[in-house]
Amino acid sequence: AMAGWGWARAVRGLLLDVSGVLYDSGADGGVPIAGSAEAVRRIKASGLKLHLCTNETQATREHFVRKLRAMGFDVSVAEVTAPAPAACRLLKERGLRPHLLVHDDLVPEFAEIDKTNPNCVVLGDAAENFTYANLNKAFRLLIGMEKPVLISLGKGRYYKETDGLKLDVGAYMKALEYACDVQAEVVGKPAKRFFESALAELGVPPEQAIMIGDDIVNDVGGAQQCGMRALQVRTGKYRPSDENHPEVKPDAYVNNLAEAVDIILQQL
Amino acid sequence: AMAGWGWARAVRGLLLDVSGVLYDSGADGGVPIAGSAEAVRRIKASGLKLHLCTNETQATREHFVRKLRAMGFDVSVAEVTAPAPAACRLLKERGLRPHLLVHDDLVPEFAEIDKTNPNCVVLGDAAENFTYANLNKAFRLLIGMEKPVLISLGKGRYYKETDGLKLDVGAYMKALEYACDVQAEVVGKPAKRFFESALAELGVPPEQAIMIGDDIVNDVGGAQQCGMRALQVRTGKYRPSDENHPEVKPDAYVNNLAEAVDIILQQL
Repeated sequence: AMAGWGWARAVRGLLLDVSGVLYDSGADGGVPIAGSAEAVRRIKASGLKLHLCTNETQATREHFVRKLRAMGFDVSVAEVTAPAPAACRLLKERGLRPHLLVHDDLVPEFAEIDKTNPNCVVLGDAAENFTYANLNKAFRLLIGMEKPVLISLGKGRYYKETDGLKLDVGAYMKALEYACDVQAEVVGKPAKRFFESALAELGVPPEQAIMIGDDIVNDVGGAQQCGMRALQVRTGKYRPSDENHPEVKPDAYVNNLAEAVDIILQQL
Repeated sequence: AMAGWGWARAVRGLLLDVSGVLYDSGADGGVPIAGSAEAVRRIKASGLKLHLCTNETQATREHFVRKLRAMGFDVSVAEVTAPAPAACRLLKERGLRPHLLVHDDLVPEFAEIDKTNPNCVVLGDAAENFTYANLNKAFRLLIGMEKPVLISLGKGRYYKETDGLKLDVGAYMKALEYACDVQAEVVGKPAKRFFESALAELGVPPEQAIMIGDDIVNDVGGAQQCGMRALQVRTGKYRPSDENHPEVKPDAYVNNLAEAVDIILQQL
């Protein structure tokens, strides 16, 4: 066993981020990260529980899981916690009717939600739908509300696709927050409530779970604030400067998911 | 003379905001605000000095002044302080080579500036140029710099055109600031240095100048921080809630520029 990993002996379940951990996303659909599909199989064979905890909002979970399965990942829709279904629960609880500024492929997740006469805006990673006209439309709806309600599916700064870095939903969230002088409610990582949902679905308490992600703030920082251990992989959006982050320090760094699983399984 | 305006007796010059004070801008070119062209003529006839202090970055000053003259305003290019020329001075002083994310019609203001191999990004109100692709491009350039330099031509939240409210440059500035974890340098109102340039061109010290604008923060707050008095007009982007602003209180409200000029000239 490697030194300094004693705490991993208590682990009973893993929460995995997806983009940047299992695969690198891209306009071409994405490319699996070497060793990750095999790593998922080894986790399941070991008896450890596994659940995916993603801020992915460019597709329905069904579509997203179909893509992962085509890349060789043994995962199912029931194993995915994602922001859109969490947002739907929140909208229903509070009687909110959203105007959606999201990716076209995410819209079916909101099929059951009343969207007439909107009294809030739901913002996701709309990608090509982040047009000047669509941003102005969302802004005008918000500024016209007596008490603007902006719900953001994550607050990531940027992510990496095969053709380069892209601005993530958090950047557009900040634009609307500033223009409307309002604070968004974030559904998705790093919100504590979102990690708690994922842990409930994993069926493991935080002290027996490890989060593995490429995002120092949203994956590592968010999970640690819920009482979990968290590893940062050096794949996906990882940048060497993350290792000097002023506020967040992972419990360990690993080169990739395969290495994380190697080391964790050695502790058991 | 009206009560409470005694301080206006010392006035020797006026700084006027343009959009929302002289005219309401719009895709159709804009519509003059009733009485404003006549008010400009009356200011000049009175012997008071007059200068325009604008965050307009959708056109060169030449083009902008031509539009104002066509609407009946007796103004010249020498009477306009605008962010792009101020940014050019700053770029030259510091040897910065900009990538421009600005309105097509503003580009000629940067004709003399070396734009090869950019080491900063200059952000203006790019309007239709605020595309997903252009925002990602500016972001990638910034995040790729050892020390990202973002220069923003103003930091307005939104403005009103004849077809509705639009997000202003400040919203996009906030998006890039957040994504790159950097603070923009603002050239334009409410920056103190920008008002000082305008006062120097007006040729009047701050205590003898009055700023007249429709923007509670950028016009009124910025001018007051330079030691000027400032009036807010109830035209343009003015909203009744501005009168409860937690930080900025104008020296007076007026219904429009014509009323401001009426009252000021009565004090002399």
